[in-house]
This record gives sequence, structure tokens and C-alpha cells, in this order.
Amino acid sequence: MQEITQLHAIFDRTRGYINRFMGIIQPIIDAAQDEHTRLYYHHILEEEEQRMGRLQELVPYLENVSGKESLAQLSDRELSQLLSDVNLERFGLHNFREHLELSLYEFQDDETRTTLDGMREKTHADYLQVKEIMASLSGRFSDGSHPDLTDHDEGHDIHQVDHLKASATAAHGVASVIKHAAPAKTAAPDKKGLTVGSLKGH
Amino acid sequence: MQEITQLHAIFDRTRGYINRFMGIIQPIIDAAQDEHTRLYYHHILEEEEQRMGRLQELVPYLENVSGKESLAQLSDRELSQLLSDVNLERFGLHNFREHLELSLYEFQDDETRTTLDGMREKTHADYLQVKEIMASLSGRFSDGSHPDLTDHDEGHDIHQVDHLKASATAAHGVASVIKHAAPAKTAAPDKKGLTVGSLKGH
Repeated sequence: MQEITQLHAIFDRTRGYINRFMGIIQPIIDAAQDEHTRLYYHHILEEEEQRMGRLQELVPYLENVSGKESLAQLSDRELSQLLSDVNLERFGLHNFREHLELSLYEFQDDETRTTLDGMREKTHADYLQVKEIMASLSGRFSDGSHPDLTDHDEGHDIHQVDHLKASATAAHGVASVIKHAAPAKTAAPDKKGLTVGSLKGH
Repeated sequence: MQEITQLHAIFDRTRGYINRFMGIIQPIIDAAQDEHTRLYYHHILEEEEQRMGRLQELVPYLENVSGKESLAQLSDRELSQLLSDVNLERFGLHNFREHLELSLYEFQDDETRTTLDGMREKTHADYLQVKEIMASLSGRFSDGSHPDLTDHDEGHDIHQVDHLKASATAAHGVASVIKHAAPAKTAAPDKKGLTVGSLKGH
């Protein structure tokens, strides 16, 4: 059950990251001077809210499963559903990495950039680990079926770009006027209601 | 089963929209002069690829279900899973609407703007209809449980903004140099492999 414990740790960590990220981005939305900037960051935050809504169900479920003696206690259907849910959150980690990279182009101050880049690096490592764990777990299906773990990043040079470096010299946006306010707000993400209900009958 | 037939039509339509959208956006990525622009549109396209991967399983499943005599032929578990999948795609429609709105800020030419805005309008109507259908379907649960249909758009003024109007006078990006090339490319989206495998055992 070590894999389930690892998955629990990864998705619990990313919940914390979402909260930190929201604390960094919300001031950008509040200070935005045009509708495009507001829509852009609102959109990113909304997708992360949706992800949080799903994780609020998945993380306790993983905790519950990790308490079982072995995965054999799960039916094939339960294991299939679990892998399906984890696969969706694998993409969620990938998309979050890109949200973090996109945000690097907004901030000039070293403190925020270091925070964003640290989360980016760990999120990418978590993404790769989830992929490995899924490959391992999918071998347990009694019918020999395997999930499609194709990494559709392939062939996209953009993923090889060092966005920390590329963003260092790029044009910056509204963040420049609030750069000292952003870090202080990281502790207050709970004001945003997480009301993305899922229907899973876990 | 009229609701299932309606859902099938909606998600089949949005598959076509994804292809049209990809044909419009890919030239922007190809012509991008900086890493931020490339990452931005690449990211949006990747999320739509992920959505397409899920729809490629959901649409045939809905077609299959619509052939049944009544929803009573589905077990509570199957109905719950169906509602969960549809709920995820409800958010998918919402996010697609925002991808279309964000893209309006890129294009100056009337033809592309009209295409994007037409898809935006229909996608929003589809989103609202899916919400209604879900409320109706969830009443069929024998145990009386209901999905959380909270619309987490509430309180976000940004959704009341007319982005077609707001984008008309906004700064435009790389699209200005390729505005005549974009419409001609809409027929060739299949080059992008849709390899986002889901694990659903439908």
C-alpha cells in the first residue's frame, strides 16, 4: 500500500500549493486594470478551484484506502475507478505546473518568483511520480488491462523551456504595482468558497 | 431518455467546436514570437485535448445509453458515475467558454471573431442546459441523493462582462500577422494526436 500512501502525500501537498497559489494570484485579479487580465487570472484560479473540489474527495478516499491491508481488498471496479480519478489528477498536476509557469511571467520580485518556481519544480516531480505509480498499480488488474499512460507532452518543445529564465527578462504585468502585497496574502485563501461539488459516491 | 439524447447532442457538438478552435489557435502557437505566448496558447490547447480525450469515451457511452428503453435500466452506481462524468464536462464547457473569450482578445479580423463568439454563445447555452438536465436526472436517484449543482460563477462579475465588446478595443497579439491564414487551417486539426487515455471501464 506504499503507492497509495505516496499518492495521498502528493495530493495532500498539492492542496496546500493551491491555497498558496490562490493567495498569490487573487491580488492580481483585484488590481487588474483591464478585463483581459482579470479574465485570464480568474480563469486560472477557477480551474484550480475545480481541482481543489475534486481533491477534497480524493484525498480522504486515498487515506481510507491506505488503511486497508492490501489493494486486493478493492474490487476491480473500485481499482479501475481509483486509477481513473488519479489519472485525471495527473493531468491536473500537469496543468497546475503550467499555471505556475505562466504566472512566472507576471512577477518581478524574487520572493514570489522563488515561491512559484519551487512549487513548479515539486509539482513536476509529483507529476512524474504519479505516472510511475499508475504504471505500477495498473499491473494489478486481474484482467490484464492497462491504462493509457501516454504522455501527450511529447513533441512539445515548450516543455523543455526554462520558464524561470525566459520570464526573467519578459515584460511584466499588473503584479509590479502590488509586488509587496502578494506574499502577505498567502494566508487567506479560505475566503474563496470551494463549492465545486463532485458526485462520486466514495 | 430525451435528456440523454440532448446530452449526446451537446457533447458531440462541442467535439466539433474543439476541432474548429484548435484550427484557429495552432497558427498562433506556430507564429508566436516569445515563450510566454507559446506557453499560453499551448496550455489552452492541451486542456482542450484532455477534454477531447474524455469526450471520445463519453459521447459513445451516451449514445449507447440513449438506446436503452429507460434510465431504470441503469443501476444507481451507473447513474451516479454518469452524472459524475457529465458534471466534469459541465465544468469543461464552462472552461471552454472562457478559452473562447480569452481568444477574442487575440484576433482583430471579423471572420475569426464571429466564429469564436458564435461558439462562445452556443457553448454557454449548452452549459446552462447541461445544468438543467443534471438537476432533472439527479432526482431519479432512488436514495434521494442529489449532486451539488452549485454554480461557482456566482459573485464573479467577470462573467457579466461582454468580452466581445471589451476585446474589440483591446491590444492585440500575434494574431494580427496571421489573420488571413487562420480560417484556412480549420480543416486540419486531426494532425494532433488525441492520446489522452482515460481508464473508464464503460
